[in-house]
Amino acid sequence: MAGSEYGRSFRISTWGESHGKGVGVVVDGCPAGLKLDENDIQLMLDRRKPGTSKFTTPRKEADQVEILSGVFDGMTTGTPISLAVMNTSQRSQDYSQIASYYRPGHADYTFDEKFGFRDYRGGGRSSGRETIGRVAAGAIAKKILANLGISVVAYARQIGPVKIDDSRFDLDEAFNNELMMPDALAAEQARAYAEETMAKKDSIGGIIECRINGLMPGIGEPVFDKLDAELAKSIVSIGAVKGFEIGKGFEVASMTGSENNDSFIMSDGKVAKASNNSGGTLGGMSDGAEIVFRAAVKPTPSIASVQKTVNKQGEEIEVSIHGRHDPMIVPRAVVVVESMAAITLADLILVNMTSRMDRIEEFYKKCTK
Amino acid sequence: MAGSEYGRSFRISTWGESHGKGVGVVVDGCPAGLKLDENDIQLMLDRRKPGTSKFTTPRKEADQVEILSGVFDGMTTGTPISLAVMNTSQRSQDYSQIASYYRPGHADYTFDEKFGFRDYRGGGRSSGRETIGRVAAGAIAKKILANLGISVVAYARQIGPVKIDDSRFDLDEAFNNELMMPDALAAEQARAYAEETMAKKDSIGGIIECRINGLMPGIGEPVFDKLDAELAKSIVSIGAVKGFEIGKGFEVASMTGSENNDSFIMSDGKVAKASNNSGGTLGGMSDGAEIVFRAAVKPTPSIASVQKTVNKQGEEIEVSIHGRHDPMIVPRAVVVVESMAAITLADLILVNMTSRMDRIEEFYKKCTK
Amino acid sequence: MAGSEYGRSFRISTWGESHGKGVGVVVDGCPAGLKLDENDIQLMLDRRKPGTSKFTTPRKEADQVEILSGVFDGMTTGTPISLAVMNTSQRSQDYSQIASYYRPGHADYTFDEKFGFRDYRGGGRSSGRETIGRVAAGAIAKKILANLGISVVAYARQIGPVKIDDSRFDLDEAFNNELMMPDALAAEQARAYAEETMAKKDSIGGIIECRINGLMPGIGEPVFDKLDAELAKSIVSIGAVKGFEIGKGFEVASMTGSENNDSFIMSDGKVAKASNNSGGTLGGMSDGAEIVFRAAVKPTPSIASVQKTVNKQGEEIEVSIHGRHDPMIVPRAVVVVESMAAITLADLILVNMTSRMDRIEEFYKKCTK
Amino acid sequence: MAGSEYGRSFRISTWGESHGKGVGVVVDGCPAGLKLDENDIQLMLDRRKPGTSKFTTPRKEADQVEILSGVFDGMTTGTPISLAVMNTSQRSQDYSQIASYYRPGHADYTFDEKFGFRDYRGGGRSSGRETIGRVAAGAIAKKILANLGISVVAYARQIGPVKIDDSRFDLDEAFNNELMMPDALAAEQARAYAEETMAKKDSIGGIIECRINGLMPGIGEPVFDKLDAELAKSIVSIGAVKGFEIGKGFEVASMTGSENNDSFIMSDGKVAKASNNSGGTLGGMSDGAEIVFRAAVKPTPSIASVQKTVNKQGEEIEVSIHGRHDPMIVPRAVVVVESMAAITLADLILVNMTSRMDRIEEFYKKCTK
Repeated sequence: MAGSEYGRSFRISTWGESHGKGVGVVVDGCPAGLKLDENDIQLMLDRRKPGTSKFTTPRKEADQVEILSGVFDGMTTGTPISLAVMNTSQRSQDYSQIASYYRPGHADYTFDEKFGFRDYRGGGRSSGRETIGRVAAGAIAKKILANLGISVVAYARQIGPVKIDDSRFDLDEAFNNELMMPDALAAEQARAYAEETMAKKDSIGGIIECRINGLMPGIGEPVFDKLDAELAKSIVSIGAVKGFEIGKGFEVASMTGSENNDSFIMSDGKVAKASNNSGGTLGGMSDGAEIVFRAAVKPTPSIASVQKTVNKQGEEIEVSIHGRHDPMIVPRAVVVVESMAAITLADLILVNMTSRMDRIEEFYKKCTK
Repeated sequence: MAGSEYGRSFRISTWGESHGKGVGVVVDGCPAGLKLDENDIQLMLDRRKPGTSKFTTPRKEADQVEILSGVFDGMTTGTPISLAVMNTSQRSQDYSQIASYYRPGHADYTFDEKFGFRDYRGGGRSSGRETIGRVAAGAIAKKILANLGISVVAYARQIGPVKIDDSRFDLDEAFNNELMMPDALAAEQARAYAEETMAKKDSIGGIIECRINGLMPGIGEPVFDKLDAELAKSIVSIGAVKGFEIGKGFEVASMTGSENNDSFIMSDGKVAKASNNSGGTLGGMSDGAEIVFRAAVKPTPSIASVQKTVNKQGEEIEVSIHGRHDPMIVPRAVVVVESMAAITLADLILVNMTSRMDRIEEFYKKCTK
Repeated sequence: MAGSEYGRSFRISTWGESHGKGVGVVVDGCPAGLKLDENDIQLMLDRRKPGTSKFTTPRKEADQVEILSGVFDGMTTGTPISLAVMNTSQRSQDYSQIASYYRPGHADYTFDEKFGFRDYRGGGRSSGRETIGRVAAGAIAKKILANLGISVVAYARQIGPVKIDDSRFDLDEAFNNELMMPDALAAEQARAYAEETMAKKDSIGGIIECRINGLMPGIGEPVFDKLDAELAKSIVSIGAVKGFEIGKGFEVASMTGSENNDSFIMSDGKVAKASNNSGGTLGGMSDGAEIVFRAAVKPTPSIASVQKTVNKQGEEIEVSIHGRHDPMIVPRAVVVVESMAAITLADLILVNMTSRMDRIEEFYKKCTK
Repeated sequence: MAGSEYGRSFRISTWGESHGKGVGVVVDGCPAGLKLDENDIQLMLDRRKPGTSKFTTPRKEADQVEILSGVFDGMTTGTPISLAVMNTSQRSQDYSQIASYYRPGHADYTFDEKFGFRDYRGGGRSSGRETIGRVAAGAIAKKILANLGISVVAYARQIGPVKIDDSRFDLDEAFNNELMMPDALAAEQARAYAEETMAKKDSIGGIIECRINGLMPGIGEPVFDKLDAELAKSIVSIGAVKGFEIGKGFEVASMTGSENNDSFIMSDGKVAKASNNSGGTLGGMSDGAEIVFRAAVKPTPSIASVQKTVNKQGEEIEVSIHGRHDPMIVPRAVVVVESMAAITLADLILVNMTSRMDRIEEFYKKCTK
């Protein structure tokens, strides 16, 4: 069954393999009248582009996006927006040998089991290039949100064992260093740790944090389609993510109710909260405070050091994975997290428009005037 | 828009409020020919029933389930299974006062914002009673899984600050103590901690862990409907859950690839893994190893100690929440986690039946013989 | 897979069998703040109730609806509305013999083939009682539409070979005669035809026509979810319907473009059409004119005259179907057509709220004030 | 909200405008291991290609399809199949004037109302070129069906007032004449009628009939997702279709039960039917007989003769539509009907795999061996 689609009202359908002809996405349900050109999308794609630092794969891809439909005179028309990025730097020969065995930590084995065989070139559909469709769609979602006054920003909270220090938190700094850390000193330490680990032919994990501001209260649907539940799905669906938490997250386990509950207060004549342990959701709906969530990212499974595995003949063998791989995924995954968060929010905001009969009546009346 | 439905092939639609006439679920897409009677469902419901220990709410509910459709001669018919549990112990007067203010940590404020008003009796739709529908449907999903040789079991890994010690892990013990901890000593310590905290009119959080065995490889859909992504959504959609992790989860952030990758090995002539850091999924599909995931559960927001909040008139007030509340949610939420995991798996197993053309051809040929 | 659900934003999930405990529906996605009580629903259900004339089954059912959730203080809360009608007049013994053979024109054989066995009591899930859930949900949809100034009305255009004469069209008359025909003379003739046919132990078909007024232009989604396509699905999904047409329908085959095209004109300063051959849709979206569609309804398959069929042992046998059956379905199906049309419209109107970015921005801005 | 997607298990998402960069489709949920190359798709696309006879638009388009993803080594991989056809013969200047007014019978007005403006070049998304994505996906669906022994074939039953005579029915003939009529004499008459009508600068409608053979009983889901209901939706979603009927269709209105019911008989030791008035479905599920349905197709709305309409300034004007248009849609729409039928069937066949627990158990057991 179909598994490459996400969203209900703002709905995306991604396609493409690492070494096929290209990758892309169809966005169905984008409202008409949004200003959009290729540059809006290119700016986001450039943030995940490989080859920009020594911490990313040396594979060079222009990753030039083309809008194939859904935009006319610089505006979205309300019809599906088809976005494509052609692959230009496939070197399939790099991967010919991996056809015969299962790389540890990769999806080779599970693809073979599910589908009977796999496109083994560069990981095929399970390659990181699959995220291009997410980011391209995310660029559109971010524009929608920006028009509503909502911002989504992510950064690296932790690289390997190195964590940022909140007292030094500086969001601008995240866009100054290649590790996307909002703390210059932590970035410095992370860089040293990364170089050391790379020298050992090993790879590095981390934690990405995302903050969303400007969201009205009430976004997210009670029960299954809670805002936090949808975020959990969309974020954990990103290749290397092994955990998701919102607000205090796993810390709540050892907190008491009196510590964890956020008191409501009045602020500027509006209901607000004295603290934000909940991370901006209550009962699965936005509570008006900043949304804060984190994603745990595993170390890149492709490493050049020797590993044990088995081949398709059922023999135990030793392999070391060469080719062009990222020693860490976190810096390039930051924009993917932002994108998935933006897509999730744009979708739930549209979904929320039908929550109240009085608002619907007013809306309908205005349309029929 | 609809938010009380989950699943694509095995699909559930829950309904009901804490102090309305009842709660229930419609299960659409359950295969025909599954043996099912009310007792199968009652046994699961009894595990979440209130009033069974001093660590749960003293509210007494029989929580007697009735099958209203979809079962004939003791077998599911393939048509929707409607399950209902009537409420018998509503005491709405308990809640009359809370209509006027927003309880900290609860969904009162967000419901009001989203819908314009709320059914304030006992939390209405955001009450823990909402999970009855989940557990009733989960009982059916667990029967399907059992027929396929798949087991799903959850337990408390942590209560407040007290964690189980893996060296003392004893699953049977989890069903012996009221805290659902598979470690008698930890349960003892957790009990002491809980009593102490309750004496302070405060509440307790924890971590639930779930293990799934017997699952064939290849379950879960690449990209958005990954097995772990779907689990993340279904688990985080449970009221008090603030985090989800699979396998090593947040620990992967500080691990290297060589530490985290699970080597493939041959075991009894089959492909297996030497370790299970991945928690049983690779590329979002089951890898044949045990699925292991955890959920962080926040302390019950209803506490009797004094808290600050605001009322609907926009005045800051002090409140202490009385009524019949659980001092901790974890022990009763264990069966909810199991249920959501079972529902997610049953759904993805059905979805997976269409992954390969050769299997479809063989299936179709057999049906037409 | 699930097949008892319909709609995307206003979403219904029906359940129940003819001779099980009851039938019902869960409506998920109904906006909050709609005034609703059981009487609103009962009035619609009473229009499909059996036993009201000699042209309907003598089975007497009170068909008393109960609202189990989703309504508080006389208003919908935005959470799922669970509606149930308990069966009171099951006489399963009537049906014991039909367990062994396949009734011509019924779903006995196809249910057995699909599910391996069937609930043979009164047709089980394929009974006309399945439509109770549709009508109950339809009553809610009609209330939503009424609040927006939209009316939906259906009636019998043809009973057996007797057609109404448009020159005598009188909508009030449709509610005066038990055949639901808006033409007293045609009703008279149809009554005579029906009595004659019933005397031959045979049954009668017909055509139902439905008219929708007050719909703003632009409702319906281009391409697959066109207004007419969604109506086609929802109407053909009603048990006995074998055809659907909108506007001129099958007549267009022999018309030319110059005959069939509706000219646009100005009327009261608004764009209108000089004719309405299109039946109120252009490109799958409402065009501001009256929506007019028709459904072909087959004669009741249960007849008392002798028919040939086979039994489960593969023997050819002769049967005559006794029990309590409607000699014609049309009069009772009129309210079912109205209901499905109303559900389809309510859903597409909600869906349409997200079509334009400027309207979304205005809506959002107002919510955040 | 998204409206350009169809199907649940075999799911398609189309995109593209008449005069944009191209048109295409993403097929998500196609099983892995189906042999597929571009030629399979091209053969179907060539059947809808313009410029092949005087009865189609003189616009020349190569309509060359490219597979961008989801196929490896000549086999589908189970991941999304992205298919694109670039536009090569746009002449947007033809359409510059129509930006200012609403063409009768077209979607210009409704697009403007829904989205606030429209891509007016050649009808944009509502152009017949939108069906390229349907046909490309239909080619894949037809291959799946062919592998299961199922055939889908459509043809023109009626062109203008000229109907085929069933006594002369010859399916091969449908592929011999440019009108796709399985009756040489009728084709001759239709040709004469068409030329005459074209000389009057007018256009022609018709009826397409489709037959499906080899389908096992039990396909289609009871209640809303009935086989006939899904066909109704997918067929009526085709641009010019104004009606759908299955089996005897609208004729059933004046038939009696004894005439319309199909008797079950034994044939070659299998259950069969003595007649096929039902058109191959009972209770919304395939009954093992041939599926036969018809679609009413309206005359092309673009005609060169003078018509009245209004412009965007609200003035009544006269227009005659020039440019490159089909005088009749039927011959080219035949393959679109076939495609939508094939997509609908492929989807419901996959959906049906989960209907019985015993089959699921057997399937799962085999997979885990």
